[in-house]
Amino acid sequence: MKGFFHPKSVVIVGASRTPGKVGYETLRVMVENQRAGAFKGKLYAVNPRSDEPILGVPTYKSVLDLPEPADLAVIVAPAKYCPSILEECGKKGIKRAIVISGGFAEVGGEGVKLQEQLKEVAERYGIRVIGPNCVGVVVPSSGVDTMFLPVHKDMDGKPLESSPRPKPGHISLISQSGAFGVACLDYMYGEGIGLAKFVSYGNKVDVDEVDVLEYLAVDPETKAILIYAESIDRGREFLELAKKITKEKPIVILKAGRTSAGAKAASSHTAALAGSDKIYDAAFKQAGVIRVLDMEELFDVAKALVMQPPAKGDRVAILTDGGGVGVMASDEVESLGLKMAKFSEETLSKLQGLKDEGVIPPIAAIWNPVDLTGSATDESFTKALRILLEDENVDAVAILALHHVPGLTSKLPEKLASIAKEYDKPVVAMDVGSSTYARAFREKFEEVGIPAYPEPERAIRAIKGLVEFGKVKYGF
Amino acid sequence: MKGFFHPKSVVIVGASRTPGKVGYETLRVMVENQRAGAFKGKLYAVNPRSDEPILGVPTYKSVLDLPEPADLAVIVAPAKYCPSILEECGKKGIKRAIVISGGFAEVGGEGVKLQEQLKEVAERYGIRVIGPNCVGVVVPSSGVDTMFLPVHKDMDGKPLESSPRPKPGHISLISQSGAFGVACLDYMYGEGIGLAKFVSYGNKVDVDEVDVLEYLAVDPETKAILIYAESIDRGREFLELAKKITKEKPIVILKAGRTSAGAKAASSHTAALAGSDKIYDAAFKQAGVIRVLDMEELFDVAKALVMQPPAKGDRVAILTDGGGVGVMASDEVESLGLKMAKFSEETLSKLQGLKDEGVIPPIAAIWNPVDLTGSATDESFTKALRILLEDENVDAVAILALHHVPGLTSKLPEKLASIAKEYDKPVVAMDVGSSTYARAFREKFEEVGIPAYPEPERAIRAIKGLVEFGKVKYGF
Repeated sequence: MKGFFHPKSVVIVGASRTPGKVGYETLRVMVENQRAGAFKGKLYAVNPRSDEPILGVPTYKSVLDLPEPADLAVIVAPAKYCPSILEECGKKGIKRAIVISGGFAEVGGEGVKLQEQLKEVAERYGIRVIGPNCVGVVVPSSGVDTMFLPVHKDMDGKPLESSPRPKPGHISLISQSGAFGVACLDYMYGEGIGLAKFVSYGNKVDVDEVDVLEYLAVDPETKAILIYAESIDRGREFLELAKKITKEKPIVILKAGRTSAGAKAASSHTAALAGSDKIYDAAFKQAGVIRVLDMEELFDVAKALVMQPPAKGDRVAILTDGGGVGVMASDEVESLGLKMAKFSEETLSKLQGLKDEGVIPPIAAIWNPVDLTGSATDESFTKALRILLEDENVDAVAILALHHVPGLTSKLPEKLASIAKEYDKPVVAMDVGSSTYARAFREKFEEVGIPAYPEPERAIRAIKGLVEFGKVKYGF
Repeated sequence: MKGFFHPKSVVIVGASRTPGKVGYETLRVMVENQRAGAFKGKLYAVNPRSDEPILGVPTYKSVLDLPEPADLAVIVAPAKYCPSILEECGKKGIKRAIVISGGFAEVGGEGVKLQEQLKEVAERYGIRVIGPNCVGVVVPSSGVDTMFLPVHKDMDGKPLESSPRPKPGHISLISQSGAFGVACLDYMYGEGIGLAKFVSYGNKVDVDEVDVLEYLAVDPETKAILIYAESIDRGREFLELAKKITKEKPIVILKAGRTSAGAKAASSHTAALAGSDKIYDAAFKQAGVIRVLDMEELFDVAKALVMQPPAKGDRVAILTDGGGVGVMASDEVESLGLKMAKFSEETLSKLQGLKDEGVIPPIAAIWNPVDLTGSATDESFTKALRILLEDENVDAVAILALHHVPGLTSKLPEKLASIAKEYDKPVVAMDVGSSTYARAFREKFEEVGIPAYPEPERAIRAIKGLVEFGKVKYGF
């Protein structure tokens, strides 16, 4: 599988000379990645009409004419040519192909036959195939990117970023829906969330979620595995494998089609056979797979999992300068089945000490949530955080730091992070707002390794993910 | 109450000459609004030490020296001076005061006494008082703004927007928590959501949520009333009033402290006496008040309520170019207790007709959700939307238009809006992503009156709000 993500040479079969066509855009993305230094391998193109170079890439009339068997063939030719192209790949000794082209089983009739032919050829030559009818793979660290959607798109005559790719990172995403996968990458880019591997497997004539999972389990770049699925075909293998993986690496799944309306929609979308959602739920739980209900939660949890250690218990401390957000976070703690940490006597007396010293105001609440009030300062936050992390009744801390109060500075995130690093307990942050300050403040937290959220409930849901992973890992 | 929001003259009592101090910042905000033309009234300042003008504003040593009884006094002096300042306001004939200063009941002891004195003076002179210990009011359309937090704040030596104010609009917000209210304004600004009136009433020595509600009910600017509360003191009056209002104007409430952990946190935050959440829930339902669970949902629903008509039934149609988001939206429809619309035979044959004409691809799903697939075009979306809106089995339409597909242009939002306007049925839009295109695409929808969301579930939750308001208004 590694050759799909880190190939030394790639050939685009069905490359075109016409901008806008899939066969041109796919090649262009790879050429740009090569020029930018992201893709360090060799690039070839195949176009049956002419062997004039396209975009400066050496071009051949047939796969058979290539100077070497490329590590990976990306096939974007019309469906009807794909079986014979794959046959040529086999003859040439190519071992991996991604078939982007649509027009197979998903259109019925002739397409079903073409897909069977594709499968037969793949098996005969032992070629591993991703697709057909898929977006393929995107790997920011190796520059391999088979997503034909151009980064920019015209809006009222101005080119705007339309399908940007995320920066390299440690989250991998497997998506049964190509379109939703593309949308997720757009979201990740805008939210500054890094990507390890993205795979859209389409009609999965060969490679499916189990194969990809097997690879991601050992991929050193991948620290959390996210899955969007409407059905899981090899259920038993998937769960057995997941059970092994989740002891070390978290898997988070967004399984859609959880209601009868959703299942009905899924059956016409990916021909997914629904199966009872309760059975899925129980199976995921048994396999240690963390289940989320929407995209926002998928990435909120993933971000926390790659930035913070898993929790060793479910007792949450809340530290805030805004009483209201403290109340909302407390509501969410209980709603999610987590516990509000009950501070030790020592903690309470240390917090009282901060009051006596004038570090925190007399009206501050020192029970959980700790509310430093609008008079909060960097010093009050940092001193209080250390006291909370020292308490053995505290397993995780949510820092709800509304930046609006006058006493907080932009140095707060790094000050808090340097304390958090001394303890093996997860810490997440929250600041409400869409102002430039709010956005930059949350970014600063993430730069120093503390995931930051724009709503108290989302911060607590992230902690829930860390608690679930902790349960699987440490068995509490 | 109107004089609090649209006063002809305002005096800042306790104005300071020192930048950074509340007495200076409060005056500065008003001066800037006056210079920008937003505040068209007269401005006075009172500073006991000197009658030299501050920031060019005529300044007096005492309220008694003012050339006229101002419509509104904003008091930012230390707590201990507030009762005597209010006494002077009474003597001068001033009828309204906002006491921003803290140091009253919330600090206990002496503060409790000061608050009692304030109350006694207010009653004796018949002065209506908002506060103390509050942020006051923000009214973008009249330029009245008592929020002392400066718009900008320093981040690493660069001033960034930190507490920006939203643009004028039709949503009013009442917040029991000042800090959370400020954070909400920050969010509204960044999300481009317009504000009519914001009120933070703090310790509510006089004006409370019921008084504000009475005013907002008749305020022509206000089309939706949002409330953040941890407790409601005059419960019966509140509910009776709400019941009348919600026949015409929607009220959406975020009532925190809904769990025992949250209620405990609330009791130390606003001394809220919790009361059973189930009782609150039932009472809100009876009064036609729409309840939401977090800030995101509060504004998602509010946006829909001011932009779209209420639904006349609960049958939802989903129109999309992405199968996956269609499945997720269907899940949410069922989860929220809404219904997936069952299309009429006529609708199905019209949609089939679009296939036959080649407007939508043969593999498109024409059941609900209608999935135009990645081959969707502006034409396919607009023609399909009209067919769905014509169907009498459809009460609301969610348009899930992933912009990434090649066939959609930036003209789509206005094309869809011009069709939606012909029907008295609510339409909401959705596009996933944080790229500049995704953000601009959603903005375009909102410019033409269709609220747009970044997640399928959020679009459906917005429809839920329109259905709930419709139920109250039309009684289905």
